[in-house]
Amino acid sequence: MGVKSDIEIAQEAKMLHIKEVAKSVGVEEDDLEFYGKYKAKLTEEYLKKAESKKKGKLILVTAINPTPAGEGKTTVSVGLGDALNRLGHKTVIALREPSLGPCFGIKGGAAGGGYAQVVPMEDLNLHFTGDFHAITSANNLLAALLDNHIQQGNELMIDTRQIIWKRAEDMNDRALRNIVVGLGAKADGVPREDHFVITVASEIMAILCLSSDLEDLKKRLANIIVAYNFKGEPVTAGDLQAVGAMAALLKDALKPNIVQTLEHTPVIVHGGPFANIAHGCNSVRATKTALSIADYTVTEAGFGADLGAEKFLDIKCRIAGLKPDAVVLVATIKALKYNGGVPKTELGKENLEALKKGIVNLEKHIENIQKYGVPVVVTLNSFITDTEEETNFVKEFCEKKDCRFALAEVWAKGGEGGEALAKEVIDTINTKPSNYAPIYSDDMSIKDKIGTVATEIYGADGVTYTPAASRQIAKIEEMGFSKLPVCMAKTQYSLSDDPTLLGRPTGYNITVREVYVSAGAGFVVALTGAIMTMPGLPKHPAAYDIDVDENGKITGLF
Amino acid sequence: MGVKSDIEIAQEAKMLHIKEVAKSVGVEEDDLEFYGKYKAKLTEEYLKKAESKKKGKLILVTAINPTPAGEGKTTVSVGLGDALNRLGHKTVIALREPSLGPCFGIKGGAAGGGYAQVVPMEDLNLHFTGDFHAITSANNLLAALLDNHIQQGNELMIDTRQIIWKRAEDMNDRALRNIVVGLGAKADGVPREDHFVITVASEIMAILCLSSDLEDLKKRLANIIVAYNFKGEPVTAGDLQAVGAMAALLKDALKPNIVQTLEHTPVIVHGGPFANIAHGCNSVRATKTALSIADYTVTEAGFGADLGAEKFLDIKCRIAGLKPDAVVLVATIKALKYNGGVPKTELGKENLEALKKGIVNLEKHIENIQKYGVPVVVTLNSFITDTEEETNFVKEFCEKKDCRFALAEVWAKGGEGGEALAKEVIDTINTKPSNYAPIYSDDMSIKDKIGTVATEIYGADGVTYTPAASRQIAKIEEMGFSKLPVCMAKTQYSLSDDPTLLGRPTGYNITVREVYVSAGAGFVVALTGAIMTMPGLPKHPAAYDIDVDENGKITGLF
Repeated sequence: MGVKSDIEIAQEAKMLHIKEVAKSVGVEEDDLEFYGKYKAKLTEEYLKKAESKKKGKLILVTAINPTPAGEGKTTVSVGLGDALNRLGHKTVIALREPSLGPCFGIKGGAAGGGYAQVVPMEDLNLHFTGDFHAITSANNLLAALLDNHIQQGNELMIDTRQIIWKRAEDMNDRALRNIVVGLGAKADGVPREDHFVITVASEIMAILCLSSDLEDLKKRLANIIVAYNFKGEPVTAGDLQAVGAMAALLKDALKPNIVQTLEHTPVIVHGGPFANIAHGCNSVRATKTALSIADYTVTEAGFGADLGAEKFLDIKCRIAGLKPDAVVLVATIKALKYNGGVPKTELGKENLEALKKGIVNLEKHIENIQKYGVPVVVTLNSFITDTEEETNFVKEFCEKKDCRFALAEVWAKGGEGGEALAKEVIDTINTKPSNYAPIYSDDMSIKDKIGTVATEIYGADGVTYTPAASRQIAKIEEMGFSKLPVCMAKTQYSLSDDPTLLGRPTGYNITVREVYVSAGAGFVVALTGAIMTMPGLPKHPAAYDIDVDENGKITGLF
Repeated sequence: MGVKSDIEIAQEAKMLHIKEVAKSVGVEEDDLEFYGKYKAKLTEEYLKKAESKKKGKLILVTAINPTPAGEGKTTVSVGLGDALNRLGHKTVIALREPSLGPCFGIKGGAAGGGYAQVVPMEDLNLHFTGDFHAITSANNLLAALLDNHIQQGNELMIDTRQIIWKRAEDMNDRALRNIVVGLGAKADGVPREDHFVITVASEIMAILCLSSDLEDLKKRLANIIVAYNFKGEPVTAGDLQAVGAMAALLKDALKPNIVQTLEHTPVIVHGGPFANIAHGCNSVRATKTALSIADYTVTEAGFGADLGAEKFLDIKCRIAGLKPDAVVLVATIKALKYNGGVPKTELGKENLEALKKGIVNLEKHIENIQKYGVPVVVTLNSFITDTEEETNFVKEFCEKKDCRFALAEVWAKGGEGGEALAKEVIDTINTKPSNYAPIYSDDMSIKDKIGTVATEIYGADGVTYTPAASRQIAKIEEMGFSKLPVCMAKTQYSLSDDPTLLGRPTGYNITVREVYVSAGAGFVVALTGAIMTMPGLPKHPAAYDIDVDENGKITGLF
């Protein structure tokens, strides 16, 4: 008998009614709005009530730089949460919602794997409770109002060459990256170049995830800069009178969703901005609510610790006033060997030399997290090909770097396979104080903030700015946004801005080629290298293999 | 104190939990998938079970040609359903879902009005249960797979000048009517002209509404013609291997939704294709399920009887094997006077002459419905300015035409105001047999089908075809689609294809300028005049006035 696929394991699961899952952590049926039997949103009333409750401990799960070997950050988050619950600690997991579009491309879903999964996985990976559709609608209403303003006389004198706001769709559709809109007759709009981004790249996604409530959401929406006028002054969503209608579209999307793991641990799933161009974390509301429900909240941030964790610590925690108590850093033997130069096909063989060479990537991420004053626990998401010698080498390495270590066997064993890790995490929290502080202060200049991340976190010698980037920074500071944190848009595959540099690159400069302000989200984005905001489909899209039978059972989703 | 707005009345309503509403007509909690407390979907299991149940009576609500005075077809449908229930008849209302986009333009929502409304009206008018978002996703996945096929080598030899499939969005966005996609570098697609339509104009919307179950849905999806190849042969969604993934996206959208009126009558709301370019009716599944639940089902079809009712009778009933028992034809004194040549500002004044002149529009619609062998009841959606003499004139006119007449005072009085109408409807069903037959047979040629609708229903002398339309018809018949019914795309404002010809135009020809086959939906579309498939926003969009407060209460939606 072969190994079961994730979707097979998920579909065999005996789910509890979501009201029972919620009840297990003290959330009553009246606090829920059901979406079928296995999904619910928390009510606005409950969310308001939760704000004043005492908060539990916060554990962030992050990883080394992603490789084709896969690290399993979500799988470890789920398994760790299940394990903590098994050990009697009241725990809630707080994750991002997966994006629908990429499910039809190469990437599988994002609900964990094996016996450490969030269910119902098909719903989670497809429409779920419609949050992303609401964001797409709000994004595109703003775009329609913008073009309509120009069509109807352009009172705000918007310079159509300086429109920043892009349309959005939750689909991998490369043909929409660069388009011309408004062709045809006079009634069909004003022709101009335009672009679609995938919904997770919309500023509204970032705003939804950083808003504390509906009022804060509206303030942030109003601040979105959609274009510049002919005088070079910003034109905002507020100027376009778009805020109330956008907020009406987003009112339900702003309520976190609750689902369960295969072992019935409550999972609050909410929001999911890209981690390379936005801040890559689930919503502030979800994390804060989880903290008020449970003694331990396990959350994660996108891609490697240089992107997701850096932004979690420098943007999300700063804006939301959160303080993480421990960071779990996920690696795999395979990924470390890949960082040591072993080709993808050879990763299954023991290779201590390559492991020693590649472990510098893990080393740098450990050091980075320690710079924030937060204790680190390293875990290896275990594979059957890992040898004892390889595992022991990593264990000893971590202990020398003053962090705990444990194997995570959650893919194969679920929560039971995460108990060793859970114990190390609890012990770390009980014995090592977290002295969290962001890596740069609000008062530093934008260039100093970028420079701090580049040198302290990426390990670069310094930063090279294109003339355009320097001009843009000067303009952003002149507009009064110099106090905002910076959100680095960088390849996830390397600590540097060159995706081919594995391990722990040194002796290089980061090149910043474009800088813009996401005034609604509240950060300044610095782009390094070519970052894709609209993915494409591959030669054989996953869509070809997805099907649904006459009873509604889905196959081929992974 | 002023008159309350629709949204104020709706928000003051004391809704029952949807499980109680369903229970009142014998649908159990287990047959429902909740979306919050006041919305639910019927489960796939229930829908299968319902198929074999005995069916009740079917009442179609339609109207004269729409005028700026408003006819209130949905309002009458709701009030009639409430009235039937008040009189002790087990009744379910089956309506279309409103489109989100137009709510931000000029048009208000589509949940009825006054005291004859469907609630929760904000949900219904905005995202509801996400059905339209699912349709948008499936539509755009197909588009992405199509362009990706070309990008990856174009094995099917698709002629990019002959791509029929358009992208969709549920938003009024004129700038997307005519666009160029695929600009940029080699990795960014193949440049070509493209178009967005509003989601209700997507063939997938029509397919969803005509599918009996998931299997039938998949068959229809596979048949969609997306383009022609360089040999002129059709390329289908099946050829693109898009069917399974599209069906997976649509599996929940295919389940009808249940909500309630202000008086707690169950309303099954499902699907909503445009009535000018598609068939303008709610889903077959919804209507059939309503028939199996209740003794009386009240449903409606879009725009005037020349569009919505014609398609209901010639397309929906034909494909689904439905047999209507009575048709309620809605008019207003104001609209009849408008048809008699009175300008919009003068409609409040008594004017018997104009009424006599304009009543020919009603006369033609009565005669048309009678051609289908279905008994007609006429109702006036009453306004405070209507005089007794005017009302009596219409009443006597109807009786001479062998149909019952009753006032509908449902806007002001809810179900109570619909009791007189309900009694006439019941009495008609009990005394006049329905000998329903469509106006043309499957075996007629496409031109004969178009000709029959044009002369018998519109009152035209004949049909003029552009050379292109004649060529297209020949090709469609050659491809083997001659047995399909025709779906006329025509202005809703006139019985003719000229929106300025009110009353009962004669002595004119209908001009058919383009014909194409919707092979998935299963009809041939004949376009007359310029039909808009993507609306625009006006100078002062309704979006400007919509807002939501800190507790999630929406204002300004109407």
